[in-house]
Amino acid sequence: MGALVKLLRVGPKDAELPAVLDDEGRLRDLSGVMGGADLDGRFLADDGLDRVRAALESGDLPVLDAEGLRIGAPVARPGKVVCIGLNFRDHAEETGAAIPAEPVVFMKDSSTVVGPFDEVLVPRKSEKTDWEVELAVVIGKTARYLESREDALGVVAGYAISNDVSEREFQLERGGQWDKGKSCETFNPLGPWLVTADEVADPQSLGMRLWVNGEVRQNGGSKDMIFDVAEVIRYLSWFMVLEPGDVINTGTPAGVALGLPDHPYLREGDVMELEIDGLGRQRQTVGQA
Amino acid sequence: MGALVKLLRVGPKDAELPAVLDDEGRLRDLSGVMGGADLDGRFLADDGLDRVRAALESGDLPVLDAEGLRIGAPVARPGKVVCIGLNFRDHAEETGAAIPAEPVVFMKDSSTVVGPFDEVLVPRKSEKTDWEVELAVVIGKTARYLESREDALGVVAGYAISNDVSEREFQLERGGQWDKGKSCETFNPLGPWLVTADEVADPQSLGMRLWVNGEVRQNGGSKDMIFDVAEVIRYLSWFMVLEPGDVINTGTPAGVALGLPDHPYLREGDVMELEIDGLGRQRQTVGQA
Repeated sequence: MGALVKLLRVGPKDAELPAVLDDEGRLRDLSGVMGGADLDGRFLADDGLDRVRAALESGDLPVLDAEGLRIGAPVARPGKVVCIGLNFRDHAEETGAAIPAEPVVFMKDSSTVVGPFDEVLVPRKSEKTDWEVELAVVIGKTARYLESREDALGVVAGYAISNDVSEREFQLERGGQWDKGKSCETFNPLGPWLVTADEVADPQSLGMRLWVNGEVRQNGGSKDMIFDVAEVIRYLSWFMVLEPGDVINTGTPAGVALGLPDHPYLREGDVMELEIDGLGRQRQTVGQA
Repeated sequence: MGALVKLLRVGPKDAELPAVLDDEGRLRDLSGVMGGADLDGRFLADDGLDRVRAALESGDLPVLDAEGLRIGAPVARPGKVVCIGLNFRDHAEETGAAIPAEPVVFMKDSSTVVGPFDEVLVPRKSEKTDWEVELAVVIGKTARYLESREDALGVVAGYAISNDVSEREFQLERGGQWDKGKSCETFNPLGPWLVTADEVADPQSLGMRLWVNGEVRQNGGSKDMIFDVAEVIRYLSWFMVLEPGDVINTGTPAGVALGLPDHPYLREGDVMELEIDGLGRQRQTVGQA
């Protein structure tokens, strides 16, 4: 019927083209319909999703050969990536932190956003590179000083999987603020799809899983967020302007290397796989910067 | 001679045009030379400064009437704004913080960047909005894992004045990380000019001053930075990729409201003026969001 929209960007890094998965799972080319525009904040602000729906309904979008095509992040260079820390009780407990009374907010350099199957690099001099499966919210409308949960959910363009890769020594042992361990090159695989908000019936009922080398490490669900998606957006809008294309990483459940008894931090050659119900699957091989 | 380059962007918000101040202080239009390009990271990466110098030497850039023209930030929407906290001993002491052993790093939403004479808004529910005059470094070349101070200074496109406006309750009393008090709307006036690096003989010898309602509040100099510009850039490049157009706010000297005995935080109608030797002057009126 056409409401079902999974947007993605395919092709070489920095030369991705917009595409959409149709109801039969075929990849269809959006570059003609979008007239050279990218899947970015401007596109989302400009009712781009409505145009994509109309084009899908018309049924004559060219089918692309998915074989061997790289998948990029589904949003081109977000204006900012805002993150919520310690937003799952079990994760706060495993790190020894107090349960936050209000959302903990930090930021990642948005140039860390890479494709869902791109290599993740362990930084030089890093011993404690860690994983975090997260539900990413992509903003579709400008938001400031939102009053209600309904208003908050109304600015969501869609959802995606985010891997909020983190260097724990840089984050926690090098003085000051967490951002230092959150912004290393390749530290935010995003995608594979931007699933439009209308397709996610309840963002608080999604299972979230992460494996390293085939072993399940995180197995939680968005139902266990301390501050849910609507509250996170409403809250953030009182501290900053949220703009179309911005990404919010809403926090990770327990099971990160920092919280495991043997601290099995990432090493070159390790493989991470991530999955969130309805949002697809990621897979990254770990390299060395 | 042509080395002297003060770049700026003039015109209505989000419709600024690139311009340059010539040796006689006349404003000259760069939009023709730049063919529709903006003063942004791509321009800086693409040897844009060399083209501006050549155009200035040719002497036939159109003169603009500066009368009544708004001045915007001299860099269009930076990819990121990275900040160094507690980088002046007297400021660390006035806030009661320890002298940092290595740079304290945090981030501001880059959409906070506004023009040097634009209104600064006290956020809703804010009681503790504060000022910080800072030397801003604008990056001109991609930098990762820099080894030397020389390499670090080699990636600087230029310098500008930054007002790292901060809400102290949001920053320090609301749980977690400083970013929450640093990213409110209009919280980063930048400019008036981007002064190219070759014109700043020594970035560590610049006087820095800030007045509120005509009363001098900050009166320091970049010579008192704990970590100097070269070290800040070298250090940051080990934690994140610095890209053309990125802005680094290198820290503020003593004299902020947080550190003054009577905590004279900003109120609607207050006027901030900022000055750094050779980088011009800013002036903002405070409004209420």
